[in-house]
Amino acid sequence: MSTPPNSWTCPSIPALATARVTELQAIIDRKTKPVGSLGRVEELALRLGLMQDTLAPSLRGQVLVFAGDHGLTAEGVSLFPSEVTQQMVSNFLAGGAGINVFARQMGLPLQVVDAGVAAELPPHADLLDRKVRLGTRNALNKPAMTRAECEQALAAGAALAGDLAGRGINALLLGEMGIGNSSAAALLMSAYLDRPAADCTGRGTGHDDAGLTHKARVLTAVRARHAGLSDPIDVLAALGGLEIAMMAGAMLGAASRRMVVVNDGFICTSALLAASRIRPAVLDYTVFAHCSAERAHGEMVRALGGEPLLDLELRLGEGTGGVLAWPLLQAAVNMVGEMATFASAGVSESEGGP
Amino acid sequence: MSTPPNSWTCPSIPALATARVTELQAIIDRKTKPVGSLGRVEELALRLGLMQDTLAPSLRGQVLVFAGDHGLTAEGVSLFPSEVTQQMVSNFLAGGAGINVFARQMGLPLQVVDAGVAAELPPHADLLDRKVRLGTRNALNKPAMTRAECEQALAAGAALAGDLAGRGINALLLGEMGIGNSSAAALLMSAYLDRPAADCTGRGTGHDDAGLTHKARVLTAVRARHAGLSDPIDVLAALGGLEIAMMAGAMLGAASRRMVVVNDGFICTSALLAASRIRPAVLDYTVFAHCSAERAHGEMVRALGGEPLLDLELRLGEGTGGVLAWPLLQAAVNMVGEMATFASAGVSESEGGP
Repeated sequence: MSTPPNSWTCPSIPALATARVTELQAIIDRKTKPVGSLGRVEELALRLGLMQDTLAPSLRGQVLVFAGDHGLTAEGVSLFPSEVTQQMVSNFLAGGAGINVFARQMGLPLQVVDAGVAAELPPHADLLDRKVRLGTRNALNKPAMTRAECEQALAAGAALAGDLAGRGINALLLGEMGIGNSSAAALLMSAYLDRPAADCTGRGTGHDDAGLTHKARVLTAVRARHAGLSDPIDVLAALGGLEIAMMAGAMLGAASRRMVVVNDGFICTSALLAASRIRPAVLDYTVFAHCSAERAHGEMVRALGGEPLLDLELRLGEGTGGVLAWPLLQAAVNMVGEMATFASAGVSESEGGP
Repeated sequence: MSTPPNSWTCPSIPALATARVTELQAIIDRKTKPVGSLGRVEELALRLGLMQDTLAPSLRGQVLVFAGDHGLTAEGVSLFPSEVTQQMVSNFLAGGAGINVFARQMGLPLQVVDAGVAAELPPHADLLDRKVRLGTRNALNKPAMTRAECEQALAAGAALAGDLAGRGINALLLGEMGIGNSSAAALLMSAYLDRPAADCTGRGTGHDDAGLTHKARVLTAVRARHAGLSDPIDVLAALGGLEIAMMAGAMLGAASRRMVVVNDGFICTSALLAASRIRPAVLDYTVFAHCSAERAHGEMVRALGGEPLLDLELRLGEGTGGVLAWPLLQAAVNMVGEMATFASAGVSESEGGP
């Protein structure tokens, strides 16, 4: 475990290179296709160019899966026992989880970050030890993290993004694993969006109606216990998770480096919500990969102005939605870089004008 | 140009291997994820297993782009001049079109089929000459094809699918290029679904309101000219296109070989509609890649019971939607083949039972 910093300062996020809009759009419109006919792929190409401040966007992505445990699981909010977090970390490191299969398919390297798993984990080449503590506290009784712990997690996340940038990675695909973290995500949504906790509560890994009712009751009590917080980092510390805080920090660090932030499902989006309350400009660098089947996800995405690329009823987390959307980002970049123009291919343009 | 056959007999399509449902579902449910949490990817995995009659589905795909011209362009239904069809064939063969860029990205081989381009095309290794005639007739005046020409196109398509199957390809991604073919597709939709032609007419490559109105007026007249046809091949001959008929034949041929049929946008779906009127079981082997921005596409897809994977406001055709959805099919197959099980990974199962 590393030593907590004194107080974290969020890095600043550069403005999008909006001066390039006209030229980028012209490049896209000269490609051999009816204007606008690649729809959202074209929008994505434009956005990636503005994020990267270039007329020739390119992508080198990496997946980081952040893992942490949750003291609130003592209240029976999850269908799976807490030890599944560490078991799944082993599964990630052995290459057998869903995110491994999809990341391999897409040619994306993957590392696992121990943000706060409630067990000492054996070292592994693909495991980054950034453990702040052995799981959060039970938020029904006290803040899940202290402010210092939360800032330590944010700083570690931002530093991880910086490390990736230093290795030439320019797109960060975020994933998470943490039994109980759909509860933390629901609590963050409830606090940041000022919505009743019950409306933010979903079935997580598969609660039946009784389980959902119990979970909503617990989350309502937790929310009441920590009412009245206004500073976004205080909210994150009280209700969030170590993996969620570290993801938020990684998002902010990535955006500060002009990296593309590929957002995943419900838990990932709660980290983005936290990050956006710290620095709204993080959203300029975010691609919303998908809308998940967790019932409150759509509302959280809309609150952030996101337009998800996929809607496949996914609710696994781990970053699987982000990785499944990755080929669309690559397609956008390849369209700009590889497609012929009307002039280069000798194709007649529309008689209605381009 | 090849000699027309006497009369085409559509190959029969085997039933899905529904006896494998239980075992396939059990394999999917043992993977290390909450049951059902990969949503539509899981559904896809199951379907692919049933199509291929196996517990270990695998994919080897190929793109065929069918090209043909349309006599109806004489009526000003398209924004681009007819010669763009052959220009785009050259672009495909040079590797510069959208479909080339995306197929390369996905590692999918691509061939172009000349079903009826209105020009003699120079030979090329990736161009398959199956030209039935130099474009269709103007359907405002007479049937676009004779019955014999239409059957020749259907037979050639089915034979192409058979050739691919013989080379070990088990998934056919269909694309098309043909200036004027959104008109033919709208006419087929109108006839097969018994809907007013105007309701099936869309902006195609980008008509403004005046262009759309003109196009709808022409298509309404064409539809009236060929009212009362009931045999699905007669409808296809009167209103369709050579590339559309050949795609329909390829779909039927593919399904007869248990190949996966990856359906693309509006024009491709009109071919599927025709194919499904000839042999409804073709739909059992079809994956609907996306819902396009062409306004009547959604209705045509729903009429066929399709559930598109993507909704990206694409309206380019060429097979681009199918190719962009391809990684999701691969992901489904990889999930079955590569993901660890709860037992193999030593992960505890849900306390609520799997």
